[in-house]
Amino acid sequence: MESQDFRDFGKFMIDYVADYNESLREREVLPNVQPGYLLNLLPKQAPEVPESWKDLVADIENKIMPGITHWNSPHFHAYYPTANSYPAIVGEILSAGIGCIGFSWIASPACTELEMITMDWLGQLLGLPKEFLNSDRGPGGGVLQGSASEATLVGLLASREITVSRIKEHSELDEGTIRSKLVAYTSDQSNSSVEKSGRLGSMLMRLLPTDDNCSLRGETLLKFIKKDIEDGLIPCFVVATLGTTPTCAFDNLDEIGPICKEYNIWLHIDAAYAGAAFVCPEYRYLMSGVQHADSFNFNPHKWLLVNFDCSALWVKDARHLTEAFNVERIYLADNKKGTVPDFRHWQIPLGRRFRALKLWFVLRLYGAEGLRTYIRRTIELANNFRKFIEEDERFEIAVESKMGLVCFRLKGENTLTEKLLGKLMARRKIYVIPGAYKDKFLIRFVVCSRYTIQDDIDFAWNEISTQASDIVKSINHQNGETISIPKLLQKPGEMTKKIKILEMDNDKQNSTFAIE
Amino acid sequence: MESQDFRDFGKFMIDYVADYNESLREREVLPNVQPGYLLNLLPKQAPEVPESWKDLVADIENKIMPGITHWNSPHFHAYYPTANSYPAIVGEILSAGIGCIGFSWIASPACTELEMITMDWLGQLLGLPKEFLNSDRGPGGGVLQGSASEATLVGLLASREITVSRIKEHSELDEGTIRSKLVAYTSDQSNSSVEKSGRLGSMLMRLLPTDDNCSLRGETLLKFIKKDIEDGLIPCFVVATLGTTPTCAFDNLDEIGPICKEYNIWLHIDAAYAGAAFVCPEYRYLMSGVQHADSFNFNPHKWLLVNFDCSALWVKDARHLTEAFNVERIYLADNKKGTVPDFRHWQIPLGRRFRALKLWFVLRLYGAEGLRTYIRRTIELANNFRKFIEEDERFEIAVESKMGLVCFRLKGENTLTEKLLGKLMARRKIYVIPGAYKDKFLIRFVVCSRYTIQDDIDFAWNEISTQASDIVKSINHQNGETISIPKLLQKPGEMTKKIKILEMDNDKQNSTFAIE
Repeated sequence: MESQDFRDFGKFMIDYVADYNESLREREVLPNVQPGYLLNLLPKQAPEVPESWKDLVADIENKIMPGITHWNSPHFHAYYPTANSYPAIVGEILSAGIGCIGFSWIASPACTELEMITMDWLGQLLGLPKEFLNSDRGPGGGVLQGSASEATLVGLLASREITVSRIKEHSELDEGTIRSKLVAYTSDQSNSSVEKSGRLGSMLMRLLPTDDNCSLRGETLLKFIKKDIEDGLIPCFVVATLGTTPTCAFDNLDEIGPICKEYNIWLHIDAAYAGAAFVCPEYRYLMSGVQHADSFNFNPHKWLLVNFDCSALWVKDARHLTEAFNVERIYLADNKKGTVPDFRHWQIPLGRRFRALKLWFVLRLYGAEGLRTYIRRTIELANNFRKFIEEDERFEIAVESKMGLVCFRLKGENTLTEKLLGKLMARRKIYVIPGAYKDKFLIRFVVCSRYTIQDDIDFAWNEISTQASDIVKSINHQNGETISIPKLLQKPGEMTKKIKILEMDNDKQNSTFAIE
Repeated sequence: MESQDFRDFGKFMIDYVADYNESLREREVLPNVQPGYLLNLLPKQAPEVPESWKDLVADIENKIMPGITHWNSPHFHAYYPTANSYPAIVGEILSAGIGCIGFSWIASPACTELEMITMDWLGQLLGLPKEFLNSDRGPGGGVLQGSASEATLVGLLASREITVSRIKEHSELDEGTIRSKLVAYTSDQSNSSVEKSGRLGSMLMRLLPTDDNCSLRGETLLKFIKKDIEDGLIPCFVVATLGTTPTCAFDNLDEIGPICKEYNIWLHIDAAYAGAAFVCPEYRYLMSGVQHADSFNFNPHKWLLVNFDCSALWVKDARHLTEAFNVERIYLADNKKGTVPDFRHWQIPLGRRFRALKLWFVLRLYGAEGLRTYIRRTIELANNFRKFIEEDERFEIAVESKMGLVCFRLKGENTLTEKLLGKLMARRKIYVIPGAYKDKFLIRFVVCSRYTIQDDIDFAWNEISTQASDIVKSINHQNGETISIPKLLQKPGEMTKKIKILEMDNDKQNSTFAIE
């Protein structure tokens, strides 16, 4: 493809993306396709000769779009948001157009330095302690990762190596034995990626019980630490969550932090979703105790308008990362000591995209003010939805949640809410997913899209409310009472293992829930 | 930013990227900046109020571009290529514009299915055994990863878990002891990311010696495996490289494969760079034995025109990945059994970009024919460069290499070639990096850019040849003979630890070499 063709094709795609975004409210948020739909639509082999871009784009609307779940639709209320903004998209274009791989300073000085600068901008916007900033004199700093999963794993692996080194100095245990005795802790509310990090890093990851607010408390952590030490194990790593996936709960850092310090445990904070809210000073009380953390991570690619992937990780002492990850080789040499880091030693992979560009674009074109406005509007809309729930006596708030999340259910047996969810999924007007709090089945409603306005909240409530009426009506009709549930649907235990959607178009299509 | 502003800004950026690509030959390939240059140019804090995109773009050319190493310049001959093509850039725009996170089928059916399809297209183009294809009836398949580093780590972690399970069944060793006894093997020529994967996965990674062609042979591997078993260790994982980073050497799969089979060892093939060449049937003899592999990886984002990140991994039995990585939770449920995989269980992170789009764009708009033409042209240009070296009696081929790489040096002492490299780096007309073969210091010359034409090869040769003349002349002048070397430059050992550039503009700027 020559340059002129690219100009035409690229500008066509800009218009296509703008048109797509403008059409989001009109598109059904969930696709109406069966597994394998695309496998049957596309050829089995790559074309032998080049096709024209005009043939290609015809397939996008006809074949790809019918299979897209529209994460940026104002009717998307599932999972947590994935960020999408025009400045970030343009940042991606420039990043791809330059196409450098910033694994060392010389591999593109601007790539490393812009990342240092924008991570400091971001850290300051959040009010992080200055020990985390690249510009601070100490050994801390911020770096972009691909995902919160990677950030957690980076923390876990670094903690593993420094703990092994420390224990080796004061113990007669051999290294293999030490490694086999390491333990990590997180709450039973933490994201699946936290448990996965333990599995990937060969470290026992305990999922600790939480209090009535789904928050991990110091007392609980301390109890397990002491028991493990008694049993000859070695506490190594704690992941505290600010804004859990199920209910947006906040672990108690003020209690957890000093315990980690006392027991020489690396404290990692996973604020993947809620971290964005700290750009607003009024929410910073929720990160009280952050000064105790060894590492802090949140995803601008969730709720801060920078397209995936852009996960921000700050560490208090980056030497622990470089010591754990730096592989010395003939061909690897420091580019320059002291002032500029080699970020390849701060992450799992060697290669790195120029991700700082899209972050820079977003920070400059929204400004701090624009970001705060965006966060506050999301929370206000969620509160407006919460009021609908509270004012309708058929419904209840299933568990208190914060930020852009509302967890609700129909009063009574779980199967009512299960059936409601099934109807909503079958109709595909809005996309919500299930959750569970203690034994209660619930529906998570998240304000996700930056396009969401009050009309969309009204639309969602109308949809939910109407479908709920049908359920209550049909049960009334069958049994002559309000909340008795058909026997067929009562299978306790089933629910928590796998949530089966009851009224999908096709039997083969089972439930489809994963929460990031 | 509103939609209309995006249309303007986006189209401006399309033109900017096209103009940038058209200007690549005129830009100096290496930046002329000092560490910290950008830190001093940009504000210390994010702006409070939104800026206009026109202010932003002024900074791109004035502040960012002076700090870019132009990886797609036809004068870039360092590392290995990083892919960049117009179709891939437009694919990135669409991917960002849709902004879905394809961690399960329902999270965007097209995202999973297009990846299945394009990975099969690609696997067939390379001539991979059908067991690796998604469409095959068996448990194999292909998936996109972010980097070869991650692909290697995925293989290592999966091998670790299945080996631990197997040994536990037949042994009285406890799990911690088993884990501490696992061993992995690779050649001393493999990429640094292979050694890093061992460190990340807590597995001893032996770097085995290679033969005179830098190839790992079966005999060597077998010797180390037997010794380790004698010593009570447990061989677990082998990484064979097709196209090593230093010299583009090929390990001997026909010998290595059966040994891995006999000893129940997972064989992973890292063909990060050279794998792309297998789209041309005439190079497939170099992957003879590929049928023995458990996993095979190469980077379309290196030499197959798909922008970073796009690393293709095929496995023969994906169940080993899902068993190792699948974290069951209340909220995680299979979307549908059997026909469509949940790719989140095939990788480290949970989230996934819609990377298949750019791969699809490249495959359709280049066609198989276009890709083959591109690969063959690269190799032809490298051969033309090789001829220049061979025909000039001051130079020698330092070690035989294949594909787009030529490893050359000035005849005689290493310091001559070191000095030549120093001059080239100081002048910044072309970008090459050092290598070492046995005790010989060498310069790696890679045809990287898709814009490179014969004129650029001539240009590079002229630059190298001219600078070499200066060196030889000055030595002649000092000592009255051709290849004696100033004492000052003779520091054996120094070279292999860190290669210091001799004639940089600024003393503080030391060597800056990392090879992906």
